[in-house]
Amino acid sequence: MKSIHSTFALLAIALAGLTTAKAQDPLPSWNDGKTKQSIVTFVEKVTKEGSVDFVPPNERIATLDNDGTLWCEQPIYFQIMFALDRVKTLAPQHPEWKDKEPFASLLKGDLKGALAGGEKALMEIVAVTHSGMTTEEFEKLVKDWIATAKHPVIKRPLLEMVYQPMLELLAYLRANNFKTFIVSGGGVEFMRVFAEKTYGIPPEQVLGSSGKLKFDLRDGKPELVKLPAINFIDDKDGKPVGIQTYIGRRPIAAFGNSDGDLQMLQWTAAGAGARFCLYVHHDDAAREFAYDRKSHIGTFDKGWDEAVAKGWTVVSMKDDWKTIFPPAK
Amino acid sequence: MKSIHSTFALLAIALAGLTTAKAQDPLPSWNDGKTKQSIVTFVEKVTKEGSVDFVPPNERIATLDNDGTLWCEQPIYFQIMFALDRVKTLAPQHPEWKDKEPFASLLKGDLKGALAGGEKALMEIVAVTHSGMTTEEFEKLVKDWIATAKHPVIKRPLLEMVYQPMLELLAYLRANNFKTFIVSGGGVEFMRVFAEKTYGIPPEQVLGSSGKLKFDLRDGKPELVKLPAINFIDDKDGKPVGIQTYIGRRPIAAFGNSDGDLQMLQWTAAGAGARFCLYVHHDDAAREFAYDRKSHIGTFDKGWDEAVAKGWTVVSMKDDWKTIFPPAK
Repeated sequence: MKSIHSTFALLAIALAGLTTAKAQDPLPSWNDGKTKQSIVTFVEKVTKEGSVDFVPPNERIATLDNDGTLWCEQPIYFQIMFALDRVKTLAPQHPEWKDKEPFASLLKGDLKGALAGGEKALMEIVAVTHSGMTTEEFEKLVKDWIATAKHPVIKRPLLEMVYQPMLELLAYLRANNFKTFIVSGGGVEFMRVFAEKTYGIPPEQVLGSSGKLKFDLRDGKPELVKLPAINFIDDKDGKPVGIQTYIGRRPIAAFGNSDGDLQMLQWTAAGAGARFCLYVHHDDAAREFAYDRKSHIGTFDKGWDEAVAKGWTVVSMKDDWKTIFPPAK
Repeated sequence: MKSIHSTFALLAIALAGLTTAKAQDPLPSWNDGKTKQSIVTFVEKVTKEGSVDFVPPNERIATLDNDGTLWCEQPIYFQIMFALDRVKTLAPQHPEWKDKEPFASLLKGDLKGALAGGEKALMEIVAVTHSGMTTEEFEKLVKDWIATAKHPVIKRPLLEMVYQPMLELLAYLRANNFKTFIVSGGGVEFMRVFAEKTYGIPPEQVLGSSGKLKFDLRDGKPELVKLPAINFIDDKDGKPVGIQTYIGRRPIAAFGNSDGDLQMLQWTAAGAGARFCLYVHHDDAAREFAYDRKSHIGTFDKGWDEAVAKGWTVVSMKDDWKTIFPPAK
């Protein structure tokens, strides 16, 4: 028969175990439930040596979309906000813009009118705001802009419009020797300015859309100049293409929220062995924005339907996330 | 006055220190001298906390050319050997090649005649050998081929035609928290097949030339098909462009051997803070090949002259390297 002392000792150990487990919850901003459990189950099985699902560390590639998956994408992509602000800054040097679309509408604050010209109009805006300078000059422009830019509706600094539960997920994956990559339709040189500090993802693990560059020697000093020409669009079919070209290894886990991510999730899911695909569903009008199927910033229905049909993990931001954004700094 | 015991003790410690230092020489295949010392001096100063030259680990990017820098490139690039062997294998399915250049010459063993058609001829060979299959099919072709391919002159397996001193250099850099990248004009999907096992460089740290890919759903199964079209040529100006596009951070150390590497070394050297550029000079006709300035595989004079003029570290394979290739397996 156990002494009362040893019973207390066992109880103390059991309680200590519980406390430790709670203190070590790697995903504290995720509510307990099926969604959170699916993440933990996947990570545990691919990292357990001897398990049939074990994946060696060098093959633990995780790819994550940025806009709408790691940070907010409403009411417009933040990179478009950058371009619009840049047009306003440059306007005094371009009096001709007053009568020239898409700039005329833009400068009147009529975004819809400015983008009525479709892809051609957008490319004209991108050309004047994202080219004609060196890569270092562009980096500085973005760095200075994003340091003070605020969300137009929620009024917080843009760099705080990141999803706290996803920051925890990134850290959890890395603690389990995953290599985390951003694979986004956004501009690669735009995202690299803040990805390392904000997400802990170094520049060489950020894939995005890019413009062509030109190597030049200016007075013997080498420079890379940004040209007004598309190099690569890292969206839809471009995501698996970009993954193969830049990473060269198929991810075992992929995270997205829109139709632009669907092919990346399909490519990931189709690999051999354990795979994990997650789709973030924006259904929290109170704390962020609620939208699916169609929105003015894009379509979501194909990705959404396939996520549901294939039983991928679907995050309800309203139900699965305790908090959306990190505490204010 | 010291006792004889303490003198012996001090001597023993001193000897032990020497032994340890010798045992820990990270570059045992490098002869002592200016070249080896320049590498060690650079690595020590950028890794010494508090030093004016200190570089944080995440910024310790090193980029290395492959052909002629990490492995042999004579008498022809090994990837061209792969393409030629592939043409021979495919020839029975293409009876028309007997009368069609560049294939007719190639199948007669006349490489010079086959390449007389210049870039167009080479692209036709690349198209039939490097496209029209999925990325996974291509990977298997290269893997099977390289497992048995031998050097035509030195008669060793191609995978043993790597430079032992450079393998030690890679390990030394990584032990000092450098991230090592291949930046080569060679095909990225060709190199990735063996780079991890041979050099310890994972696929996502291999940059090279690439063809366009097409994402396709075949019976619902996603595939990436290699198209007969160039995506990116990672040579000359393309090297700094590729570094910026894929890595997004300027290297602090770069290693090359030909004019194709010059712009990468210039881009590296022009950054702020401590920088290291190294140029491998093939001057060892007895153990490998001796060539510089001009060769049938390319030009070397611009890189060579600039390396000498700028005082970059120049490796004499004859004088600086104790051994060229690793011991036979």
